[in-house]
This record gives sequence, C-alpha cells and structure tokens, in this order.
Amino acid sequence: MAVTAEWIAVDWGTSKLRAFAMAGDTVLAEAQSDDGMARLTKDGFGPALLALVEDWLAAGVTDVVACGMVGARQGWVEAPYGAVPTAPLPARPVLVPETDRRLRVFVVPGLKQEQPADVMRGEETQVAGFLARNPNWDGVICLPGTHTKWVHVSADEVVSFRTFMTGEMFALMSGQSVLQHSVGAGWDAAAFEDGLGKTLSRPESLAAELFGIRASDLLHAMPSSAGRARLSGLLLGAELAASKPYWLGQNIAVVGEAGLSEVYANALKSQGGMAAVVDCQEMTIAGLSAARKLLG
Amino acid sequence: MAVTAEWIAVDWGTSKLRAFAMAGDTVLAEAQSDDGMARLTKDGFGPALLALVEDWLAAGVTDVVACGMVGARQGWVEAPYGAVPTAPLPARPVLVPETDRRLRVFVVPGLKQEQPADVMRGEETQVAGFLARNPNWDGVICLPGTHTKWVHVSADEVVSFRTFMTGEMFALMSGQSVLQHSVGAGWDAAAFEDGLGKTLSRPESLAAELFGIRASDLLHAMPSSAGRARLSGLLLGAELAASKPYWLGQNIAVVGEAGLSEVYANALKSQGGMAAVVDCQEMTIAGLSAARKLLG
Repeated sequence: MAVTAEWIAVDWGTSKLRAFAMAGDTVLAEAQSDDGMARLTKDGFGPALLALVEDWLAAGVTDVVACGMVGARQGWVEAPYGAVPTAPLPARPVLVPETDRRLRVFVVPGLKQEQPADVMRGEETQVAGFLARNPNWDGVICLPGTHTKWVHVSADEVVSFRTFMTGEMFALMSGQSVLQHSVGAGWDAAAFEDGLGKTLSRPESLAAELFGIRASDLLHAMPSSAGRARLSGLLLGAELAASKPYWLGQNIAVVGEAGLSEVYANALKSQGGMAAVVDCQEMTIAGLSAARKLLG
Repeated sequence: MAVTAEWIAVDWGTSKLRAFAMAGDTVLAEAQSDDGMARLTKDGFGPALLALVEDWLAAGVTDVVACGMVGARQGWVEAPYGAVPTAPLPARPVLVPETDRRLRVFVVPGLKQEQPADVMRGEETQVAGFLARNPNWDGVICLPGTHTKWVHVSADEVVSFRTFMTGEMFALMSGQSVLQHSVGAGWDAAAFEDGLGKTLSRPESLAAELFGIRASDLLHAMPSSAGRARLSGLLLGAELAASKPYWLGQNIAVVGEAGLSEVYANALKSQGGMAAVVDCQEMTIAGLSAARKLLG
C-alpha cells in the first residue's frame, strides 16, 4: 500500500541515512541506506535523499527536517552551532538552498561549548525529543555511541556537555591494536565488572591495564570473550570516573541503542546511579517533530 | 671490503630484522630488512636471516644471538619467559633446532610477570646491556616505543615492570580515529605541555580531552601541529600519572630512539624527575654480547 507523507523526518549521520514518512507525530513508514555524510559530496545529498523518499511524496511541496552530520561544514548545508547554555533546539532549522522542487529541506543546528571545547550534531535533537516527552525534567542525559555524550539538562536547557571517545577507542583497540589477538566474540560479566572496577578506582591505569589483556592471554590463556568484556569494562570505567561530576546524585537517562544502553545503565547501577533507558530512535523522531514546529 | 663476523648479533622485532657483524664487543658491519616476525612463517626465518648475513660468514660455524619477537610462540623458536624477579638474562639462550649448517642460532628468552600480568621480549636484552655497562645501578629504566616498558631494577635484577600501550594508542588515534582530521605534521611545545599537565593532574579525563582536540579544531581552528603535540601530551601525561610509583624519586634511564626518548626525558624533567637518555641500539648490542657469554 502506498504511503503519502505529510512531512519527512531524517536522521543523517556519518555512516547512515534514515528517513521516516510522518503524519503529525506518527511514523507511517521508514527507509534507510548507507549514504551517510562521509561518503557523499555536496551534490550527492539531494539524489541520496530522493532515492529513499520519492515514493512518499504527495503533489505539491513536502517538508523534510533532518538532523546530524548532514549539517556539518562538509555536509549538505552548514547549520551553525548554537552555544550552550541554550535550548537544545536553539534556532529555526536551516533551509537547504537548492533542492528538488518537490522538497523543502531543513537542517537542525548542532550545539557547541566554548570551554572546554566540545561539539555535537544529532544528539541535540534526541535531547529535544526527550524534553518534549518529559517536560521540566532536570538531570543528566547520557547518549552512548562512537562518541558518547554526557549532557547536563536543567530548566529545559542544555547547561553543559562532554564527549568521550570510548566507543571509537573500543573499535580501534579491539579491531586494530595488538589486543585484536586477545579480544573475540562473546561476553564475560565477571571480566567486565573487574575491568570496570579497576579504572573506576584508578583511572590513570588504563593504558597499562589495556596491555594486561594481551599479557593475561599469553600467560594465563584468558578466553577472548573475557578479553572483550574486560576491554569494554576498562574503557567504560575510565569514562564513568571522568564523567562522575555529571552523573553523581543526578537523575540519569541513557538514550542509545538497546544493547549498549543496558551496558551503561548496569555499570551506573553498580556505582549507585539509577538510570532510565530510553530508545534513541524514538527520541530522534520526537526531536525532529519538535524542530518542525519551529518552522512556523 | 669484505667483513668476516666472529659472531652475529640480531635484533628481530615484530616489523624489523637488524643484524650486526661482530668481533668481540665491536660492530664491524650492520644490515637490516623488513622481514619482521609478523610477516614470516616458521620456515621463513632461516632464509630471511641468511639473506642478510651470508656475506659475513667465515668457513666453519658462526654463532648468532637474537632477541625480540623471534622468540615468541609465533616466532622461529619459542624461548620460554623467565619470571621476575630475575636477572634480565634469566637462562641460556635457546638453540634453534634446524638451521643452515653454517649457523648456530640462539634466541634470548623474554620476561614475564604473573601479577599484574605482563610480558616483554627484546627489552630484557636492552636492560641487560644497560646493566653490563652500569654495574650495580639501581633505579627505573623506561623503554619508550609502541608498547612502552617501565622496569624497576635493583641488585642487577628486574624486580617488576609494567607495559603501556601509549605509542600504539598515539598511532591509532592520530592515523585512524576522527582525530586524524585535526592532527598533522609539526610540533607545538606549549600544546604538548598543556596536554601533559591536563592528564597528569586529572588522568581520568583522557577520553574526554581526546575529543577536545577535534572540537578545538572545529571551534577555534587549532592548527594540526598543535593537535599532534596535544595528543602526544595527553597520552604521555596519563602514562606518567600511572607510572609515578615507578619513577618518583628514583634514578631514571630512558632507553629508546633519540627523538622519543627526549620527549619522555623532558616530560619527566618538568615533573622533577631527572632522566639520563641512552641509545637503545647500543644497549641491544651490549645485551646480546652479554647473552653470548652465557653460551659458554
């Protein structure tokens, strides 16, 4: 059955493009491709989008609201950062100047923090979605991923935030360092807890503890499932030690992919932090709905 | 002029093979190739060695003494680890069973530490060389590299040691992470000092400070030479924070490549640690000479 979109919500990251045919706040259909920002040149964005959404278009002009790296300098149109403290949607989304005449495409601005220098693109939309669903919520939102964000929210504003490269470090260490020989599939909860505890209490020991994974394999034949869980625990422990001023004694919401969010929530729980786990795609769509209301 | 070796010293690492034609403790000639352990199968070691040293052979049998990853399980012959505390050359080098009949090849054993689990192969020979040149020296030897080692030496024994993946992390972060866009050639001493100070005082902040390099580029157009120096400073600061129990108040010798050793020595100096810088190749050869004397 053919779907006709009232408007189209788009989550356009570095490696993925996801589109949702919308009627008000309801998702009618979705589609995705690997046409992320990283593999597109300026004139590739229009065709990549149309390839996904063309079947959803009614007669006339359909609005598209997009968030993520599509708004970076190397993206389709640069959507200048809003400076914190600010509402998570600090300004009207930016119109893409030349598009297929059946579309009006808007891009949500990212957020920046001058000191310590930090940036986000995409997560601000999830924060906006979370606040739209949970008005007057104060606390800390953790958005785990390649570059995990910790975001302090108060009075419907983003007060400050901090980005950790934990996910990218896990990928590089497990896939390309000497640890690749000692890190395999599977999971070992005890090894995870052990690694987490090590760097939570002595975060400076990370670089030495990392090599310990290799040495424990060579000397004590530690299984590669334990190696993987231990690596994850060590990296997350160091992140939780550094982000403690964010999460200690706060309301915490973890907004991310289900599996990774559970890992974060359980680790926080072990440290006395109670975190609600929230689906990130739902928050992205809620945030894009909120951004659309700014178009007027 | 043709050189004839009395014996041959070999430094055989993961990526490089270096051979030295020796007369007593004197180097007559040297040769090297990219036939490191990582690219050789079991039957490739013999031909790779012969290709480098054949011209140096006299009539009869010539002894070869080798150290490094050539003695790993995946190497030519496994030379079992000696357990610390121990002399840096804990046992007679291991004879390779089948070689060209003109050679007798011996491999120096590595060292292991049960708790915390750690291993070395190659550095023990440099430590042995350093102690042969500096008898009765007590203190800490730092061997910077892909996997930097901190080695506590007392009464001519290795008491304990710890390996840091700092060098490999620098290579992965600068070459393959999102930071590759913000890290380029050149150096900025102030940026290095700044990064070093950050993680020395707050080592847990490493993963967040790393992303700060990217954000400082995007927001404040930080030059990529500063990005590179800052990355190096952040990683080294975290290592010095963790290795402080090793180096604080101790005699320190840095045994490594000249440029990297100076970086370590200057960083230690900024923290009140005085380090002597010693050439690593010279120590390797001195250590292989010491190992040869164990052959009897």
